[in-house]
Amino acid sequence: MATRPDHPPPEISWSGWGDPALAAPLPEGLGTVLRQALGIAGHGRPAPPLQELRLTPARLPAAIAAELADIVGSSHAREDHETRARHARGKSTIDLLELRGGELIDAPDLVITPAGHDEVQAVLELCRTRRVAVTPFGGGTSVVGGLRADASAFVGTVALDLRRMNALISVDDESRLAVLEPGLRGPEAEALLGARGWTLGHFPQSFEYATLGGFAAARSSGQSSAGYGRFDDRVLALRVATPAGTLELGRAPKSAAGPDLRQLVLGSEGTLGVITSLTLAVDPAPEERVYQGWTLPSFAEGTTVVRALAQDGPRPTVLRLSDEAETAMSLARPDALGGGPVPGCLAIVGWEGRFEEVERRRRVTAERLLAAGAEAVPGAGEDWAAGRYRGPYLRDALLDAGALVETVETAAFWSALPRLYATVGAALLDTLRDAGSPPAVLCHISHVYPSGASLYFTVACAQLEDPIAQWQAAKAAAGEAIVAVGGSITHHHGVGTDHRGLYPREVGALGLDVLRAVKRALDPTGILNPGILLER
Amino acid sequence: MATRPDHPPPEISWSGWGDPALAAPLPEGLGTVLRQALGIAGHGRPAPPLQELRLTPARLPAAIAAELADIVGSSHAREDHETRARHARGKSTIDLLELRGGELIDAPDLVITPAGHDEVQAVLELCRTRRVAVTPFGGGTSVVGGLRADASAFVGTVALDLRRMNALISVDDESRLAVLEPGLRGPEAEALLGARGWTLGHFPQSFEYATLGGFAAARSSGQSSAGYGRFDDRVLALRVATPAGTLELGRAPKSAAGPDLRQLVLGSEGTLGVITSLTLAVDPAPEERVYQGWTLPSFAEGTTVVRALAQDGPRPTVLRLSDEAETAMSLARPDALGGGPVPGCLAIVGWEGRFEEVERRRRVTAERLLAAGAEAVPGAGEDWAAGRYRGPYLRDALLDAGALVETVETAAFWSALPRLYATVGAALLDTLRDAGSPPAVLCHISHVYPSGASLYFTVACAQLEDPIAQWQAAKAAAGEAIVAVGGSITHHHGVGTDHRGLYPREVGALGLDVLRAVKRALDPTGILNPGILLER
Repeated sequence: MATRPDHPPPEISWSGWGDPALAAPLPEGLGTVLRQALGIAGHGRPAPPLQELRLTPARLPAAIAAELADIVGSSHAREDHETRARHARGKSTIDLLELRGGELIDAPDLVITPAGHDEVQAVLELCRTRRVAVTPFGGGTSVVGGLRADASAFVGTVALDLRRMNALISVDDESRLAVLEPGLRGPEAEALLGARGWTLGHFPQSFEYATLGGFAAARSSGQSSAGYGRFDDRVLALRVATPAGTLELGRAPKSAAGPDLRQLVLGSEGTLGVITSLTLAVDPAPEERVYQGWTLPSFAEGTTVVRALAQDGPRPTVLRLSDEAETAMSLARPDALGGGPVPGCLAIVGWEGRFEEVERRRRVTAERLLAAGAEAVPGAGEDWAAGRYRGPYLRDALLDAGALVETVETAAFWSALPRLYATVGAALLDTLRDAGSPPAVLCHISHVYPSGASLYFTVACAQLEDPIAQWQAAKAAAGEAIVAVGGSITHHHGVGTDHRGLYPREVGALGLDVLRAVKRALDPTGILNPGILLER
Repeated sequence: MATRPDHPPPEISWSGWGDPALAAPLPEGLGTVLRQALGIAGHGRPAPPLQELRLTPARLPAAIAAELADIVGSSHAREDHETRARHARGKSTIDLLELRGGELIDAPDLVITPAGHDEVQAVLELCRTRRVAVTPFGGGTSVVGGLRADASAFVGTVALDLRRMNALISVDDESRLAVLEPGLRGPEAEALLGARGWTLGHFPQSFEYATLGGFAAARSSGQSSAGYGRFDDRVLALRVATPAGTLELGRAPKSAAGPDLRQLVLGSEGTLGVITSLTLAVDPAPEERVYQGWTLPSFAEGTTVVRALAQDGPRPTVLRLSDEAETAMSLARPDALGGGPVPGCLAIVGWEGRFEEVERRRRVTAERLLAAGAEAVPGAGEDWAAGRYRGPYLRDALLDAGALVETVETAAFWSALPRLYATVGAALLDTLRDAGSPPAVLCHISHVYPSGASLYFTVACAQLEDPIAQWQAAKAAAGEAIVAVGGSITHHHGVGTDHRGLYPREVGALGLDVLRAVKRALDPTGILNPGILLER
């Protein structure tokens, strides 16, 4: 009764985001503003043709490659240039700038696509013996350098692409849970579950290309997290292949049987094992989806309203609040650009569920918003929904136009949020301005909880001579600011390599010792994603 | 601005439950039924006077005891008979039977009461060096042998009684969180928080004597978990003293910064470290509390209703459903005993919160219950609330009367619940009947989740010659049944020593390796609670 998608998913652009057919040039009005306000001149360096991308030579011994091909079948072990190139980098701005930069790119020597748990287990045990580094590969959408494992201490690197492990194994309607394989992409999982009346309610910006295994391994959180929760909250049981054997974790919704070992695998970013099966809580597919836009007088006042909804309810399904700068950008229409600033701060409030419940929650929320001085913005909710997965396409166009654009996200308790907002924003602004590229720094609150929320900054400025170094400096300053104020170094992007330097300050030296001990128990020779999450 | 309770908490009975002044003999009618239905004759063995309890001689070298006294102050290091006896056992039926049985009882050599984190840290580092076993001691209310550490490989045992660490350190009203010390008992924490308008909403049967540190270390869940959630859900940050140093975990409501290491400490039952500070989410103290009783036609039909409320809401704060046998016992009045059986199954449904919300949820729930054929039982909700912490007192009276009474709890996904109910119930019934003591086996569903629930069995029968062996056989059969059906070996009591044998089957050999690796990293010489959770 396992079901799979009818056709293979579209390939993601190797050098940018998404379906190349959907790539679009920068709207003319926005281009004008960028040139005027941010001093962006000229164009960014374009990506070379794929065949001209320079890759490090493959170095995996042929005998080992043959052994691996024996496990998965030779048609599922590929070492051609295009396949290697497509598994070399994730989707951070630095990744994309590198692919455009003409540098020599390190890429996996071999890409294998196992058919199921037993093959993954066999691959890991072989690679453990042969000292081959292994990079689990889901959608390849990491934005924190999660695909930059350092295999220098190993005889080669294998990317373990999980795309063939894409079955909906079973659904337990009574318990509202489903067993799924890790290689399913967001839309595929939604289609298979939707046909049975269920949803995961997990819609991050990477939704169209990221996979379930990646959502779990990197503790993803989606745009509807206020209502549906985070992805890790949904994980009831996991099957995990590790170099030391198989872990089977989770027998009940909750348990007092010792520490929750599922929580070690969640967030482990492929460093402890490969998730080969997920048992996930599912929710009824909604009868109705409604998204609205409202403006609130200021970011501070809007924060108070958003906090009240997060704490006292009724909790919307989607709840986000842009600061003044992001609001001006969001509500600006090409034909209005250059006009006066849009006043206030835009909140997007959405509800999904049964008709009756949506209507009730929507009515009560509207009363609260109106009481706080909010004004409805006709069409803004629908606009947000229509564009919710378009951001990364816009980044490609901005890079083409010579802009540097990237995001920084963090989370903290409510009482720390104003200082976190001010400090991180100032760090980004000052660092880039002092380097000679005054930026636009936009921010929104999303992913609300009773005790706190995340802040999500978007930064755009002109690319300087070395845009990678330019961004790394800004990012480092933002990270220092986050740690100083006591926020978490990442709310939902993960650690990867970009946050690895800050990670010891998040969990402390002893916390790191604990994690290394776990790593040694499951991956004694350190083959899994070396240099991701933990320093090698 | 830290605040503490005004007076010390009442001492718990050393040989039974609670305040000795509140102990009560068995109601006459219940005694009659027990004699008739269960064949209970004669009386159980009474506990000896405290001074006559036989303890193993203290063996901790005096020089080490002096070093420990130097850390905490000599008035906070005690080795008198009464203090040792009061820290020797928890509150499982086996614990109580042993204390009544005249056996030699192993007890800690020394009981120390540190004043704060630094003293705990210093004690652990000294004990690591001196090879002294350490048992963290909160309320002493473990019902799974959690106070039976095996110190045979060490030079002695110290009980680390956290009662002096009983401050409410701070409250962050905006973020709805509070920082509290681990030695606070349930009512003390509620009083300190209640004075500021907050509640933890955590009311397990052990509420009156158990401590916050214990709730966290053993993953407690309370009777209001349907509304307020489990205790572990409430833990935002932890400070933990370990023999290897201090862990500081948790900077935001949720994070994607690697595995959630808080989840290793939660459920670690004092084997990895001592929690010295907890940052907990708090909820507004409710304006109203309402509890109602309803009967449903059968346990199966009642389960369907309870599941629908757990999955689709409106979720009550308290939601429990007794099976037919427990219902007959619960609703029986002394004057009605011996009459016909009470039909159907009793559900207790409670709401806490703002007036308006309570009224709305209560009205909708009543519609659902009536539609399912439920009938209100006047007074049953109030009776339940009045007696919610009385169960352990009744157990003392039953032991006095010659009955054996104990509980077994588990959890599973909804679809597995009917088989879990049947299989565990049969295992308990058959084992005890075949041994010559046909039992009453009662059960209720509580602690509901969208994907499943816990089952809580209560067993009563006549004590045979060796009531400890009698119960151990029944418990072993129940445990095998739980594992066979795929339930968790414990939903909220913990592992302790009683479930230690089954624990490897819950997490697997590799899961156990992981936990041992974590233990070695934090407690290299294994001094913390040796033999608890993990085999030595």
